[in-house]
Amino acid sequence: MQISARNVIKGIVVAIETGATTAHVKIEIAAGQVVTAAITNDAVASLKLEVGKPAYAVVKASDVMVAVD
Amino acid sequence: MQISARNVIKGIVVAIETGATTAHVKIEIAAGQVVTAAITNDAVASLKLEVGKPAYAVVKASDVMVAVD
Amino acid sequence: MQISARNVIKGIVVAIETGATTAHVKIEIAAGQVVTAAITNDAVASLKLEVGKPAYAVVKASDVMVAVD
Amino acid sequence: MQISARNVIKGIVVAIETGATTAHVKIEIAAGQVVTAAITNDAVASLKLEVGKPAYAVVKASDVMVAVD
Amino acid sequence: MQISARNVIKGIVVAIETGATTAHVKIEIAAGQVVTAAITNDAVASLKLEVGKPAYAVVKASDVMVAVD
Amino acid sequence: MQISARNVIKGIVVAIETGATTAHVKIEIAAGQVVTAAITNDAVASLKLEVGKPAYAVVKASDVMVAVD
Repeated sequence: MQISARNVIKGIVVAIETGATTAHVKIEIAAGQVVTAAITNDAVASLKLEVGKPAYAVVKASDVMVAVD
Repeated sequence: MQISARNVIKGIVVAIETGATTAHVKIEIAAGQVVTAAITNDAVASLKLEVGKPAYAVVKASDVMVAVD
Repeated sequence: MQISARNVIKGIVVAIETGATTAHVKIEIAAGQVVTAAITNDAVASLKLEVGKPAYAVVKASDVMVAVD
Repeated sequence: MQISARNVIKGIVVAIETGATTAHVKIEIAAGQVVTAAITNDAVASLKLEVGKPAYAVVKASDVMVAVD
Repeated sequence: MQISARNVIKGIVVAIETGATTAHVKIEIAAGQVVTAAITNDAVASLKLEVGKPAYAVVKASDVMVAVD
Repeated sequence: MQISARNVIKGIVVAIETGATTAHVKIEIAAGQVVTAAITNDAVASLKLEVGKPAYAVVKASDVMVAVD
């Protein structure tokens, strides 16, 4: 499946914190650069996400903001 | 200003495409890794974004999805 | 690629309106039920979207609201 | 109230899973086609959502992605 | 129609800027406090939005961030 | 830090409800006008949010919808 989301960044799952319905998954996309995703517990299970396995962080361009110092 | 968004990734602006109301800003966050942001033309102007200048890509954790091969 | 987004709905592309930077793609997911997606022109091109071809509407669960009469 | 969100799809609530702060509501919009919404527990209560009752899934066009095989 | 979005703020439309596909609508929700919405041109037309008319800014709680100085 | 999000509204934190992974923060932006944000528990901690302290509600323009009666 190919998706319209312009940002698909490969990394390694480094942490999974499961809540009551919402899980936080951390993906290291470069040395010391970790992206946090808040997804459903269901998605963690159906994708069989595990610490140490490769995964992509996917973000729609309209959900990216820009900041400057 | 410090923001609740969990993902604030430093990079360099490598492209700005201005549309009628919406602009696409590309930020290189690592060698060969470019993030695309769709923001308002107004924001491009008020942040004085320019190709070659540093900027951060900012994404709320609830806007990050995860994918696997 | 398998994605964490809980909503992946198959349909047929019935309209593509390209703007300056943002395109509107309409996908018919059932008889008379059309979903509108606002995506980048770049995505329309890279996915080779065309009217009459099959496509999926994909929505993260945290982007779905509920309403009642 | 009429809303700018381009996607307002009628269905029946088929499941409600309440978490600590976030609930997952499943709405069947066609035979076998279920949409999942992650909303606040507060919203579930204030809309008096119940399994078996009609409800709409509402999605802003800019939150819809497109995918192809 | 009652919606799950937790933030429904009444105001007056003070500006509408129409682009190729995306419009920016500004709603004054308090003296000197203006909220900007990026919505489709189609929505502006179907809601018959006009400067000087009342309207609500509607935001899902999961789309609100918090910042501190 | 200056951000591209067009909506940055100052207020006072009036409630914080912490869940398993997701917290709900309520910010009063005008007398009787409260905005609800769903953010990570991590963000509540790292911003040292507390009831009674000033904070900003921040919303990207593409996440604001418009409604009319």
